[in-house]
Amino acid sequence: MKINQGFLNLKDRYLFSLVAQKVGEYRAQNPGKEVISLGIGDVTLPLAPVVVEAMQKAVAEMGRAETFRGYGEEQGYAFLRQAVCSYYARKGVELDASEVFIGDGAKSDLGNILDIFAQENTVLIQDPVYPAYVAANIMAGRRIHFLDGSVHNSFLPLPHRDLRADIVYLCSPNNPTGAVYTKEQLKIWVNWALAHDAVILFDSAYEAFIQDGELPTSIYQIDGAKRCAIEFCSLSKTAGFTGVRCGYTVVPHELIQGGVSLNELWLRRQSTKFNGVSYVTQRGAEAAFTPEGLEQNRTSILYYLENARLIADALTELGIWFTGGSNAPYIWLQCPKDLSSWDFFTFLLDSCGIVGTPGVGFGRNGEGFFRFTAFASREDVRRALDRLRAMPL
Amino acid sequence: MKINQGFLNLKDRYLFSLVAQKVGEYRAQNPGKEVISLGIGDVTLPLAPVVVEAMQKAVAEMGRAETFRGYGEEQGYAFLRQAVCSYYARKGVELDASEVFIGDGAKSDLGNILDIFAQENTVLIQDPVYPAYVAANIMAGRRIHFLDGSVHNSFLPLPHRDLRADIVYLCSPNNPTGAVYTKEQLKIWVNWALAHDAVILFDSAYEAFIQDGELPTSIYQIDGAKRCAIEFCSLSKTAGFTGVRCGYTVVPHELIQGGVSLNELWLRRQSTKFNGVSYVTQRGAEAAFTPEGLEQNRTSILYYLENARLIADALTELGIWFTGGSNAPYIWLQCPKDLSSWDFFTFLLDSCGIVGTPGVGFGRNGEGFFRFTAFASREDVRRALDRLRAMPL
Repeated sequence: MKINQGFLNLKDRYLFSLVAQKVGEYRAQNPGKEVISLGIGDVTLPLAPVVVEAMQKAVAEMGRAETFRGYGEEQGYAFLRQAVCSYYARKGVELDASEVFIGDGAKSDLGNILDIFAQENTVLIQDPVYPAYVAANIMAGRRIHFLDGSVHNSFLPLPHRDLRADIVYLCSPNNPTGAVYTKEQLKIWVNWALAHDAVILFDSAYEAFIQDGELPTSIYQIDGAKRCAIEFCSLSKTAGFTGVRCGYTVVPHELIQGGVSLNELWLRRQSTKFNGVSYVTQRGAEAAFTPEGLEQNRTSILYYLENARLIADALTELGIWFTGGSNAPYIWLQCPKDLSSWDFFTFLLDSCGIVGTPGVGFGRNGEGFFRFTAFASREDVRRALDRLRAMPL
Repeated sequence: MKINQGFLNLKDRYLFSLVAQKVGEYRAQNPGKEVISLGIGDVTLPLAPVVVEAMQKAVAEMGRAETFRGYGEEQGYAFLRQAVCSYYARKGVELDASEVFIGDGAKSDLGNILDIFAQENTVLIQDPVYPAYVAANIMAGRRIHFLDGSVHNSFLPLPHRDLRADIVYLCSPNNPTGAVYTKEQLKIWVNWALAHDAVILFDSAYEAFIQDGELPTSIYQIDGAKRCAIEFCSLSKTAGFTGVRCGYTVVPHELIQGGVSLNELWLRRQSTKFNGVSYVTQRGAEAAFTPEGLEQNRTSILYYLENARLIADALTELGIWFTGGSNAPYIWLQCPKDLSSWDFFTFLLDSCGIVGTPGVGFGRNGEGFFRFTAFASREDVRRALDRLRAMPL
């Protein structure tokens, strides 16, 4: 039996393990000193009350023969797919419930969607980027071209005229940079994809953080996107579901390649290699989309965004260049004093007891940059920023 | 962008949709007549009380900041992996928790495991078989060889000396046939795999139904299996989790191919394309493995097995050949009067109002055979069997 050689081409993935290891060493050497993390990539606020209530009710139903539910449709219950359609309708996007696929989170669907594409497609991925996109394609043996993000393009690269690729990943609001594409910029991408028969894989995991009414909250707010884009959304950060696992992927019926409906391919893939999301989780997700649920989750999102604003203000005071932080829970800053990412990591930890994520862990163009996240508690953020303002630079 | 051409090679998958369609037509034409299904592939009894209690507690924890949990390890919480190891220890199999991967069900893991294998491996699949194994490999563009199951080998085929393949699927107890390999028979398969550097993908989803103490309840009860087999298990039928979604896949550290640890490959795959199972689900699964949970679930399993025994007895009375039904929730019978699978389906439906699954839907060797399942209510089973005994053959 031959293993998939693609796995041998994966580089060391242990960015967050390496961070954890260095933090462990620091703690061991500095037992009295408190470490504050501004690098948490996870939510910290609990589930909304209406979500908890809905999940409790669903668990109770599963305990009684008359209301017990076995297998659901692999693409998710109609009640939830319809709730997602209503959520889109409020954004001015009309979808049919059959275009919505409930999954266990964007990470799974972003990885598994690759099943429907031939191996010989060229993939375009930005640098810096969420590492899983790269790893999944290396595993699949695909050729990857990187598109440079930099201060010069505000980490919002656009296609140049000669750019060619079959599949492009866009993540907006972006992890790790927090940068958000405007409608005009996404239109350029959609036009490029339509002109080149390319497919856009649009990671929309952070759309709920967008506050600026001018910014797009779905790729489908762009004309023509239904013919070239698959959108991946998640309740992880939107509703605190990182430990509950629920997301939704939209594959419009208009998305046809080589005369084949990608919606039918994804349905076939999920029918064969997936068995649906927990009924309890789906009832929780349904509650998250009710007016009360949206309001309760909005409170959490605004809490994180206020953290981001405080971090952004501190960086502004310190004269440190950054992007993100106003429509996203991430802030991407340029390391001061031309420090490398890891040198700044070590400096921050040693001099301030603050943990962040070295930008170089997200790609070569992340060298010299650093990521803070807005998920810590308000108290931790305030104390970290006090230390940051006093850091010996 | 080029789609994966493998998808175009998939044949019509709509076995259960076709069954549902024909049942719908029958009901429309026979409004007064009650249809009883002996074809349900889903559990019908509710979750065990200790499982419900554990899930309620976990949901409540998720609603409070102090006990809220975000991302868990992709391979599952240690508390659950350890519970699985204890379950195996009781079977005489010693595993390390790092060899256990919690997933959202055998269907997902059986499909996704293919990521770690090169495309050019030959796959050996039995006929008849659970259709998803075939579809997943056709999607991946692999060459499939079929191994014939028949009355002559009691639908328990063994490798002949010249048999070559890189990956072989074994499912025991079997869906659709209910047949169960003995220890001696599995030893033949393990020896064959070791001799040919092949990997066995052992689907153990129905192990909890085995009542005969001589029959193996894990491939790892066979010497040498840790060096050539991956075992896939599920709480779906064992604990009624078809709508909750939880399973576990065992990849022993001794399973090395081409100098590469398959355990490390699977860990890498799951770390990249999966984000773990719901915390609520994992606490429910943990409860299912406690002595109380095992006892409560045993009650449900014995209920289904009693249904199977009643069905088996009725077939014996009618002189119909069958296998399965005593250590599995499936009964695989030879259609009487040399009827084809679909002709018998129609005959059963028209003359008895009973629904089952045509064997030909599970492969060419299923032609002339039929599957009954044991998941209906006791009352439905009794009434169906009364009708069966009276059928005009």
